[in-house]
Amino acid sequence: MAMLRFKLIIAYDGAGYHGWQSRPEGTGVQNRVEAALARLFPSGPTVESASRTDSGVHALGMTAHFEVDDGEDAIPPAKLALAVNAFLPDDIRVRVVRPVREDFHARFDASGKQYRYHVWNGPVMNPLRRTQAWHVARELDLDAMREAAGRLLGRHDFRSFTTNRGVVLEDAVRTLTRCEIRKQGRLVTFIMEGEGFLYKMCRCIVGTLVQVGEGKFSTAEIASMLECRDRAAAGVNAPAHGLVLWKVFY
Amino acid sequence: MAMLRFKLIIAYDGAGYHGWQSRPEGTGVQNRVEAALARLFPSGPTVESASRTDSGVHALGMTAHFEVDDGEDAIPPAKLALAVNAFLPDDIRVRVVRPVREDFHARFDASGKQYRYHVWNGPVMNPLRRTQAWHVARELDLDAMREAAGRLLGRHDFRSFTTNRGVVLEDAVRTLTRCEIRKQGRLVTFIMEGEGFLYKMCRCIVGTLVQVGEGKFSTAEIASMLECRDRAAAGVNAPAHGLVLWKVFY
Repeated sequence: MAMLRFKLIIAYDGAGYHGWQSRPEGTGVQNRVEAALARLFPSGPTVESASRTDSGVHALGMTAHFEVDDGEDAIPPAKLALAVNAFLPDDIRVRVVRPVREDFHARFDASGKQYRYHVWNGPVMNPLRRTQAWHVARELDLDAMREAAGRLLGRHDFRSFTTNRGVVLEDAVRTLTRCEIRKQGRLVTFIMEGEGFLYKMCRCIVGTLVQVGEGKFSTAEIASMLECRDRAAAGVNAPAHGLVLWKVFY
Repeated sequence: MAMLRFKLIIAYDGAGYHGWQSRPEGTGVQNRVEAALARLFPSGPTVESASRTDSGVHALGMTAHFEVDDGEDAIPPAKLALAVNAFLPDDIRVRVVRPVREDFHARFDASGKQYRYHVWNGPVMNPLRRTQAWHVARELDLDAMREAAGRLLGRHDFRSFTTNRGVVLEDAVRTLTRCEIRKQGRLVTFIMEGEGFLYKMCRCIVGTLVQVGEGKFSTAEIASMLECRDRAAAGVNAPAHGLVLWKVFY
């Protein structure tokens, strides 16, 4: 029997979940998305995503695919997002569902990703941002941070900027193609793009750049941090709740 | 004994409270602010605010004052906000506490207020905005809405745009000095300013303007809505969670 493949773009508030990935106790975002699809497709399709997100991390552009038998294709594609959303909690929304070619793969076909990280930089936190931005009270030196961000750009061994999960990384070379810092009022936004990111790499980059902005590291130290290839050389990991998987590129 | 008076500027996420005003069961924002002040000032000062907000409405610039005996003035004013915040939940933050002249009054001295209302206008709600924006799926005609907003500007009897609380209003004449609609991506922001607002007036203005944007009312109908002086003539009340008391002017 022929199979039909669909691409999904999913947004979620990560506060209520233990990350993207399905978990036996059902607390991953993927559990909810698969449960909603199972209401529409009796075969209970598995969702394959472009990446995972950690507990508490948000997404606006998580991308995934799933496959069903063509006999199951009862709902017109234009109505599919509405139908799936009807079975999802309101902190998870499917933005797009559309048919793709049979060999499309959300993970292997992805050419890059954009993450954004929000910092609220002021003496008092804005309570309306508290679940989606990291509060940094000390005034940040944006010029120094932007210079340090420039030194992280390009192809490097990012071993110092990833958290060891008990595995020795054979290859930690990645290319950071964009690392921009914007400021609007007290909200500081980090925009990071690359073909691929190591585990907790975005949060370590942001944490380190914030510490540069606080004067704890000089911009010149970025080069030696990269050279050390040792997690202890870089700065802290920024907390999960400020991070958003913004977009996956194909 | 001489009294010292302080002005407070308070921000809060209204989702967890039954509005600003103190309630016997302790679920008003005011209850929490007064409880925090009581930890610092044994006399347990009462807080007098510039206005109230309904259940679920947020604030960034709620303004209030309180008074203490000068013998209670143990904490330097510069540290007061930090000290009060230490006794508040993280969905309420005191942004500013500063000494004011003895006859300053948060309500009587206010010369105007600014409210902002957020609408997410697109087929699928952004889950990261769901607690702070009203989801309107149908594409809105911004030009029509801006024209209608212009017709609400100025001095009018706004009886059609307020919700009767069982009292007959003697005077419903108010002056709307600003009613601006901005759009950035799918986020539509209404900025409303005036010397004073009637009960639920902002939410009725936004609800009506959204219905103009959906084509349910024409811009020409605004004039007759005002003339009717009857709540049934205007549109729906927009939900509470999209509204923010942004600023109080003095």
